[in-house]
Amino acid sequence: MANEKKLVEQITSMDEDFAQWYTDIVKKADLVDYSSVKGCMIIRPYAYAIWERIQGILDKHFKDLGHENVYMPMFIPEALLNKEKEHVEGFAPEVAWVTYGGSEPLAERLCVRPTSETLFSEHYANIVQSWRDLPKLYNQWCSVVRWEKNTRPFLRTREFLWQEGHTVHATAEEAEAETVQMLEVYANLYEKDLCIPVIRGQKTEKEKFAGAKATYTVEAMMHDGKALQGATSHNFGDGFAQAFGIRYLDRDNQLKYVSQTSWGLTTRTIGALIMAHGDNSGLVLPPSVAPIQVVVIPVQMHKEGVLEKAREITERIRTFVRARIDDSDNTPGWKFSQYEMKGVPLRLEIGPKDIENGQCVIVRRDNREKSFVPLESLETEIPRILDAYAAALYENALKRRETMTYTVSTLDELIDTAKNKPGFIRAMWCGDQACEDRLKEVAEVTSRCMPFGEEPFGDTCVCCGKPARKLVYWGKAY
Amino acid sequence: MANEKKLVEQITSMDEDFAQWYTDIVKKADLVDYSSVKGCMIIRPYAYAIWERIQGILDKHFKDLGHENVYMPMFIPEALLNKEKEHVEGFAPEVAWVTYGGSEPLAERLCVRPTSETLFSEHYANIVQSWRDLPKLYNQWCSVVRWEKNTRPFLRTREFLWQEGHTVHATAEEAEAETVQMLEVYANLYEKDLCIPVIRGQKTEKEKFAGAKATYTVEAMMHDGKALQGATSHNFGDGFAQAFGIRYLDRDNQLKYVSQTSWGLTTRTIGALIMAHGDNSGLVLPPSVAPIQVVVIPVQMHKEGVLEKAREITERIRTFVRARIDDSDNTPGWKFSQYEMKGVPLRLEIGPKDIENGQCVIVRRDNREKSFVPLESLETEIPRILDAYAAALYENALKRRETMTYTVSTLDELIDTAKNKPGFIRAMWCGDQACEDRLKEVAEVTSRCMPFGEEPFGDTCVCCGKPARKLVYWGKAY
Repeated sequence: MANEKKLVEQITSMDEDFAQWYTDIVKKADLVDYSSVKGCMIIRPYAYAIWERIQGILDKHFKDLGHENVYMPMFIPEALLNKEKEHVEGFAPEVAWVTYGGSEPLAERLCVRPTSETLFSEHYANIVQSWRDLPKLYNQWCSVVRWEKNTRPFLRTREFLWQEGHTVHATAEEAEAETVQMLEVYANLYEKDLCIPVIRGQKTEKEKFAGAKATYTVEAMMHDGKALQGATSHNFGDGFAQAFGIRYLDRDNQLKYVSQTSWGLTTRTIGALIMAHGDNSGLVLPPSVAPIQVVVIPVQMHKEGVLEKAREITERIRTFVRARIDDSDNTPGWKFSQYEMKGVPLRLEIGPKDIENGQCVIVRRDNREKSFVPLESLETEIPRILDAYAAALYENALKRRETMTYTVSTLDELIDTAKNKPGFIRAMWCGDQACEDRLKEVAEVTSRCMPFGEEPFGDTCVCCGKPARKLVYWGKAY
Repeated sequence: MANEKKLVEQITSMDEDFAQWYTDIVKKADLVDYSSVKGCMIIRPYAYAIWERIQGILDKHFKDLGHENVYMPMFIPEALLNKEKEHVEGFAPEVAWVTYGGSEPLAERLCVRPTSETLFSEHYANIVQSWRDLPKLYNQWCSVVRWEKNTRPFLRTREFLWQEGHTVHATAEEAEAETVQMLEVYANLYEKDLCIPVIRGQKTEKEKFAGAKATYTVEAMMHDGKALQGATSHNFGDGFAQAFGIRYLDRDNQLKYVSQTSWGLTTRTIGALIMAHGDNSGLVLPPSVAPIQVVVIPVQMHKEGVLEKAREITERIRTFVRARIDDSDNTPGWKFSQYEMKGVPLRLEIGPKDIENGQCVIVRRDNREKSFVPLESLETEIPRILDAYAAALYENALKRRETMTYTVSTLDELIDTAKNKPGFIRAMWCGDQACEDRLKEVAEVTSRCMPFGEEPFGDTCVCCGKPARKLVYWGKAY
């Protein structure tokens, strides 16, 4: 942490240049580094520690729901990728191809997995024979590769980390229940752990996953009003089962195709954290994924007893929060900026006067609210302040989304809103892809999702005026 | 678990055909499945759960020693791989090359990482400037690819999972201390957690890692007397630092090269578990990595109260061991074989008579020793029996190694031993690679390591008769 001095240079203001603000944060909060591998990123320890916390939370939920982790090969032979028609059409244009092993050309080229439906399907065809074998509820943590042209750290990189769940079930109903259940796991991660409210809904035919019967999504709004697809959950019906011959002998002695799902969440979630909560001083991290929840800063630390007291407090609070002391020779002011850049939720300051008064100062990262906390109350006050802080992050993000969501009834209104007001646009839609394409063309928005549990508010399509079938959230997206 | 019936078919006896015995276990204990991706394997849930436990143990040790996890790209541009001469010569012949992104040929081909020294070195050159930045203690969990011709599950596959630690230090002494320390972390994992004794030592020049100044290793002996390299730790000196320009400004205002290490352990450790402890009934797992430590089998389970009691016991012991009940309709005998195949350390049987007597039967997987345990003593007896079981696994493996280690002084003796007695051969060596090559040729043995802390027992080379410099363990290896 010795070259930290460089890290607390000013970053570009969010209002001035949002994209540059984002790039500044990922570099200055030590989240990523670039390398000579174009389009890929190095995930540095601070960002990886956030990812490990996200993994820990999800992995526990998955296992509690009966899922098991596995590991599939990272390569997919071309013939295997080609087995499900819609799927290969969706992915083939953006895969990396291995053509040589050592100095020898391969007889069949292999793609580096962009996603693993084909591998799981082949495996399931091998291991599923009877209704007794069902369901199979598998997940894997790995990296995948998609050969993107324009890349940005976390949001779009040629290689990224993710988990991909893949399940097979005896009935269509069970597969649908799984798809919905896993979307709710993601929604909970976003809302409860990451303090980011999400719209749960279904993707249109145009936006759904290649090969899926239905894709569900959680959509979050960023500071700049743009949408970020937080995670998706797909119901494949028996499409892959038919292509790969995944059948089981049912209780009634009939051979039947399984019903299948997949669902995934990626490291772009870290991008969502940055853009949902960050400010002009840097990151603002929710407590449940913050690598450091409380940083202890001794003030006038060379005065007698200060450093000892600060260390004693650090040790004491480490029994219930992730705490760390910064007893380096940098100035307190410099340290304040440094840990603000890193988004540490609470700063605990302690100096000679505080010690005299038997108290310390606790400062919240989000609004810089100061509390004077008696030292004997740290065990109750720190968790209370952390909870209030987490609730405020969520409330602010929700308020922002509500303020920046517009309901429109006419095409002119939609175009005007898309042009002048960043945010989500609610509008009725006929269900025809031509209208989706048209809105993209005239207003530069895409359909984010058809939300669950929201009532239609009109009966004509905002685009063509024909009878409307669906309420849709439209927006510009990462 | 419904198609378990197939799994308890007899497996090939170890004495009859050791290789086939191994293959039978990996399939019938549900450890791996094959796919159309040649040379790669699917790691199934039971094996992956073992790997997760190994990861958990190591990751905690790494972090306790100050290491941080990161994630590097999986691709290495050809020019980057070429930067350190010995390293590229060692790895280039066995890497997979990506030459296309989508439908476009790449300007520069990329190899799929066989190991990541080059990527870490480039990153360190970026982020290390001053003595204050040192040491950097990084680790990553990922998969790597080496284009092997002959593959076997866990032991040698084209893709495998591992961790690779990479560190940079201000001085050569610190790097050496790190290299030795991390070898000891591996040795402890093997001996304390996996119950497999290992020989700690240094690789010869011929056998060391491509680009390393020194490679340390832990070598384990399998049931058949063959050696398995358990993990390695490398001291690079400043070789990569010079090639990549990793320099820092020291306290004395001089620019100096860093000293560097790397160390890794792979999923072949699961192969070691199979071959060190397994028997003709299947796997035998050490408690600390066994996904299930105790399986509860209700006997005559349709008699009143049996199932309830078995479930109650399972819930109760789950507070201190990983326990699972099998209340399926399969026969107890079938279940016994099934969980023996899976290597579950303890089987707890409970039937009507046991309930009457307030006891249960606990059977050890290794020697099938039965104990009648009063139900009120489960909290003390289960941990006691598990400890005794783990100690016995270690003792047996150690005894086997001691019995199958031969000390020889002449070339004839060595050739005769290598031919007729599977195991390790201790012999003095002059240090000349010509003798190493000759022993390979005439006795089909390779040098496993120059052990730490063992006294030389002679002063002439077993091969050429010239003055001996080193005591070496020789053997046939996986």
